[in-house]
Amino acid sequence: MLSVLRKSFPNVITQANRVVRCKSNQDKCAKNALIILAPGAEEMEFTISADVLRRGKINVTVAGLHGCEPVKCSRSVVIVPDTSLEEAVTRGDYDVVVLPGGLAGNKALMNSSAVGEVLRCQESKGGLIAAICAAPTALAKHGIGKGKSITSHPDMKPQLKELYCYIDDKTVVQDGNIITSRGPGTTFDFALKITEQLVGVEVAKQVAKAMLWTYKP
Amino acid sequence: MLSVLRKSFPNVITQANRVVRCKSNQDKCAKNALIILAPGAEEMEFTISADVLRRGKINVTVAGLHGCEPVKCSRSVVIVPDTSLEEAVTRGDYDVVVLPGGLAGNKALMNSSAVGEVLRCQESKGGLIAAICAAPTALAKHGIGKGKSITSHPDMKPQLKELYCYIDDKTVVQDGNIITSRGPGTTFDFALKITEQLVGVEVAKQVAKAMLWTYKP
Repeated sequence: MLSVLRKSFPNVITQANRVVRCKSNQDKCAKNALIILAPGAEEMEFTISADVLRRGKINVTVAGLHGCEPVKCSRSVVIVPDTSLEEAVTRGDYDVVVLPGGLAGNKALMNSSAVGEVLRCQESKGGLIAAICAAPTALAKHGIGKGKSITSHPDMKPQLKELYCYIDDKTVVQDGNIITSRGPGTTFDFALKITEQLVGVEVAKQVAKAMLWTYKP
Repeated sequence: MLSVLRKSFPNVITQANRVVRCKSNQDKCAKNALIILAPGAEEMEFTISADVLRRGKINVTVAGLHGCEPVKCSRSVVIVPDTSLEEAVTRGDYDVVVLPGGLAGNKALMNSSAVGEVLRCQESKGGLIAAICAAPTALAKHGIGKGKSITSHPDMKPQLKELYCYIDDKTVVQDGNIITSRGPGTTFDFALKITEQLVGVEVAKQVAKAMLWTYKP
């Protein structure tokens, strides 16, 4: 049937075929990110991460730590999550779990047993975990990646230097499945490093260029 | 009475006095920013601007172009405005009006007669107007700052180069009361330039340092 149609309408069938192939490839290749949004999260660290990953065609789920209600961030920007963390974890696997910083937001991440479960599950399957600014202390609290090389906001160093190999002189540090970074001003490079790991360095560079950012992998 | 109390409780009175003085100074000196948030706005450009200005102790009003309802931005981050633009303009003067970019967001800004009125009113009293990425074309549409030096996202240059003195080689351009910038990757410097203009270069540098950003005025 397809061959008959192809003879009669070659362009239409070729194009339709392409659409089906692309859709299939897209489904197979699509990467999924979970960003956990807690009250008091640093809104720049959250927004830059979500936006950059979506520019890289990564499916991003913004999960409210305490539910679906709007979340007031550290400088009073109010963001509506896509879903709750409780619901998000039922939807399947994520290629990366991202923790934005912010002092109050990080405290909430540290105090959440649900976050601990998500992180330990992600670590046990070798999935990427990315934390920025204050959030690497949530990794410490939940026993993630101990002994690995990490960085954080400089103010958090005293809480981390005994548990990890602490790196002062890089804006983004990757050690295996753990990516960490330092603060709002390093979030573009943090999000681009995640993008690079999930969809490749060329995509990361293209995303950076369109944002007028110079990414140096 | 105060002198008697001061003798009896010198520390308490001195501290109370300080609080009163600071509050008074704060009220007198407080600067006010209006950020207009349109559907399809670039969420990084919005969030970085709002957050950085608030870190500089500038009062920021986030005004939804079409009302108080949550606004879906260009990469599907959903933000709840503080108020509607209609309500915001009744609250008094603003020291700066800020327009984030984003193609769809900018189109909405261009098509809004209310935005035109806000910008012309701001220009007529010599107040700061700041626009980034695609948003300088909204300035052009509403007849703001014609002939001045500006920049924008490079893709917008063809729409602007006949009306303005277009600058290609700077990330942020200020010409009198008009501040313009180029895209997500230049938003920290854009917001810090606004901060510098409203509350001084030292505050801007302190804000930058806490964000782990190097600001070069």
